[in-house]
Amino acid sequence: MNHPVQPNALKKPLPEALTSALKSIFGGRLFTTQAMREHHGSDESSYDPMPPDAVIFAHSTDEVATAVKLCSSHDVPIIPYGAGTSLEGHVLALQGGITIDLSQMNRMIAVHAEDLTATVQAGVTRKQLNLEIKDSGLFFPIDPGADASLGGMAATRASGTNAVRYGTMRENVLALTVVTSDGRVIKTGTRAKKSSAGYDLTRIFVGSEGTLGIITEVTVRLYPQPEAISAAVCSFPNASDAVNAVIQTIQMGVPVARVEFLDENGVKAINAHDKLGLPEKPLLLFEFHGSEHGVKEQAELVQEITAEHNAIGFEWATRPEDRSRLWAARHNAYFALLQMRPGHRSITTDCCVPISRLAESILETKADCERNGMVYSIIGHVGDGNFHVLMLVDPHDASEVAKAEAINNRMVSRAIEMDGTCTGEHGVGLHKMDFLVQEHGEDAIDTMRGIKHALDPKNIMNPGKIIRW
Amino acid sequence: MNHPVQPNALKKPLPEALTSALKSIFGGRLFTTQAMREHHGSDESSYDPMPPDAVIFAHSTDEVATAVKLCSSHDVPIIPYGAGTSLEGHVLALQGGITIDLSQMNRMIAVHAEDLTATVQAGVTRKQLNLEIKDSGLFFPIDPGADASLGGMAATRASGTNAVRYGTMRENVLALTVVTSDGRVIKTGTRAKKSSAGYDLTRIFVGSEGTLGIITEVTVRLYPQPEAISAAVCSFPNASDAVNAVIQTIQMGVPVARVEFLDENGVKAINAHDKLGLPEKPLLLFEFHGSEHGVKEQAELVQEITAEHNAIGFEWATRPEDRSRLWAARHNAYFALLQMRPGHRSITTDCCVPISRLAESILETKADCERNGMVYSIIGHVGDGNFHVLMLVDPHDASEVAKAEAINNRMVSRAIEMDGTCTGEHGVGLHKMDFLVQEHGEDAIDTMRGIKHALDPKNIMNPGKIIRW
Repeated sequence: MNHPVQPNALKKPLPEALTSALKSIFGGRLFTTQAMREHHGSDESSYDPMPPDAVIFAHSTDEVATAVKLCSSHDVPIIPYGAGTSLEGHVLALQGGITIDLSQMNRMIAVHAEDLTATVQAGVTRKQLNLEIKDSGLFFPIDPGADASLGGMAATRASGTNAVRYGTMRENVLALTVVTSDGRVIKTGTRAKKSSAGYDLTRIFVGSEGTLGIITEVTVRLYPQPEAISAAVCSFPNASDAVNAVIQTIQMGVPVARVEFLDENGVKAINAHDKLGLPEKPLLLFEFHGSEHGVKEQAELVQEITAEHNAIGFEWATRPEDRSRLWAARHNAYFALLQMRPGHRSITTDCCVPISRLAESILETKADCERNGMVYSIIGHVGDGNFHVLMLVDPHDASEVAKAEAINNRMVSRAIEMDGTCTGEHGVGLHKMDFLVQEHGEDAIDTMRGIKHALDPKNIMNPGKIIRW
Repeated sequence: MNHPVQPNALKKPLPEALTSALKSIFGGRLFTTQAMREHHGSDESSYDPMPPDAVIFAHSTDEVATAVKLCSSHDVPIIPYGAGTSLEGHVLALQGGITIDLSQMNRMIAVHAEDLTATVQAGVTRKQLNLEIKDSGLFFPIDPGADASLGGMAATRASGTNAVRYGTMRENVLALTVVTSDGRVIKTGTRAKKSSAGYDLTRIFVGSEGTLGIITEVTVRLYPQPEAISAAVCSFPNASDAVNAVIQTIQMGVPVARVEFLDENGVKAINAHDKLGLPEKPLLLFEFHGSEHGVKEQAELVQEITAEHNAIGFEWATRPEDRSRLWAARHNAYFALLQMRPGHRSITTDCCVPISRLAESILETKADCERNGMVYSIIGHVGDGNFHVLMLVDPHDASEVAKAEAINNRMVSRAIEMDGTCTGEHGVGLHKMDFLVQEHGEDAIDTMRGIKHALDPKNIMNPGKIIRW
């Protein structure tokens, strides 16, 4: 796809001494094949791959530290790689270098069920974690959709559908083990639930996208599995009614666990894909966690609120199979959408606004998509003011891609004007570096740059991402 | 009091040019009187005052920026001052310089009730904020006890009794306006509820205690006032039973809004001070927020749990006057404790551990106090694993002070060994710099130091606090 990136402009050839030193340590876990390099030089963004020079699969923090020390001594870039599910070009090897794949670092280190914490290696995925702790009566709520690794989720400050109730990785990471740019190993925090002990190193690395250090272990908060769960869905005559119902739900303090918006295009796609007969109107899906009585009370209250906003066909259920049926529309949304235009790719946007501006933000973006004749759908974690437009484009049609990018630009600019953010949960990567400046201003970016220079003086940690050197 | 601090060792005389430049801007809001300087050179810690050379009262972010630029051009230290309620020597002017008092920056900038956010000048106190938003149906939950300023609370990453449900300043600050060490003004975030937009500047400044920049405006999250509130108290035969009841309550996911522990010494003090007839045993105080039915359900569940742990006399109430009566013991605890030994001062300690270690941590500390014949009480925000020992000492008795410090040292060292933190909510200031190293290790401290050097290259922002240069 046609993006204004200077591929490997600063790329230098990999020093032979480095390759052989890495080979002697990683043996068969070092790869230089084209296929492996291309795979690791691309994510789920629409960028063409930019492969690293080599890929190594690490098994321990010590191995990562050794690799970083070697790369540092040769001034060679290092890019951490988890599940490869990032969306903004986070893992592209702009300047070549070594990609450290952490997916085989998938060991549970400790589950402290009595403290509601777990410590895992960075490659453990959220599904694996939840499987491992299933019998403890606990769960880890952050659900970005993809089965991302905990290290990657921490590195991009991910969130998803449950964030409205449980927060994001920002709130749910207690501590990290990090390999710094000179190959030292630090722990950023403890298992204490709160702390005022100095600079918040944990949250400096959460969201730093591999540009300040490599996260090798993650300690997260766990939650007791709720006594009861109920789900509800309803349709609305228009997006505005749906969003206003959500705004009122949040303002009244109903502790919804999830509230997802799907526009009529998404519903149509789902109907076609799953042979459902949902009204082809904007849809809200709710999930409630609490006591038996509590989830009933929440569902009833939300039913009242949505009725005031012209909801159609409010349905709710508590049995797992009925809940799954109600939520089926959401779970398959992404794949159903791709079927709207087979052979095309999705450009997936992301922004987040103060909730009072959400209806306006969604409606203007919708109108923009319509005006430009896009094949699109809007999906939102609307309880947080966060939504995504998925636009299906022909990757070989430069003008269509440009049109989609222009819609994205306008959406993000409006979000920033509304005192919102250019990315609610996908991160900056390569794609949003200019928006980051627009959102924060040059002086705040300078502060970020100061931190980058201090913690990565050689600019070898995932260089060219988040901020310009 | 006798602390190993080198008072004003690096102090240089204030340049005349700086004084006259500040005088021309701040006029009658610049003070050099002994009384004003001493007042601003001390907090509620047990340190003797270390006065700055001058105090200015700022009225705007621009004034703070101008003062910082002037001080920076003369390499003169700057110490921000809010309500003066910090506990670890945060505001002592170790190297002299200018204290900027922000208490007159007490203007509400914006309340966005529909978004559940408020933006205030740094000098607005939490009580003022809650008074100003009372009619909006919202409240700001963080309650550290003292009527601290929002700027100060952000700077020390404060929390208190409500944190178990609502989090700390870490979770509840959305954005800050900060004057950097070279006098530039940056905004660290937006009003979006979540964001993945680059390094988390907000959380770099939250908890930085004035050492990286001066917080002049704070945007916080607000919450809908709960539909119903209920309170409960009960006594226990021993501290262990009380703490174990709390542990089980948290592990079962009961969403308590507050749960406070008061040991038998505290109860005795309260009985004497307020003429109450509470059993002179360890006490737990609960508060529940939710729907009418929800708070009833929570209270009943907690009653069951506490009964299993041998609770005595579980009482609960929903009417405001009855709740106030039940909680009276907690509200007056600090002053009642001071009356246990009139004319003495309290050394107030702070640590936080994973909750499974809380009983052990409290019991060992209690035994240590007993062994050393201290007059003391233990108060805890036990739902978070956070507690304080208040030891009443004669400030002129060096051996007594040393004994108290030794108890504190052992308590903190044990907390760190338990994978807890040297400070749950009071911060590092001057007093806990060595513990910070013990907790994080030299390499992590180096990372913090790198950030300090990057953001304050002249070491003029509250120098000598948190980490050594």
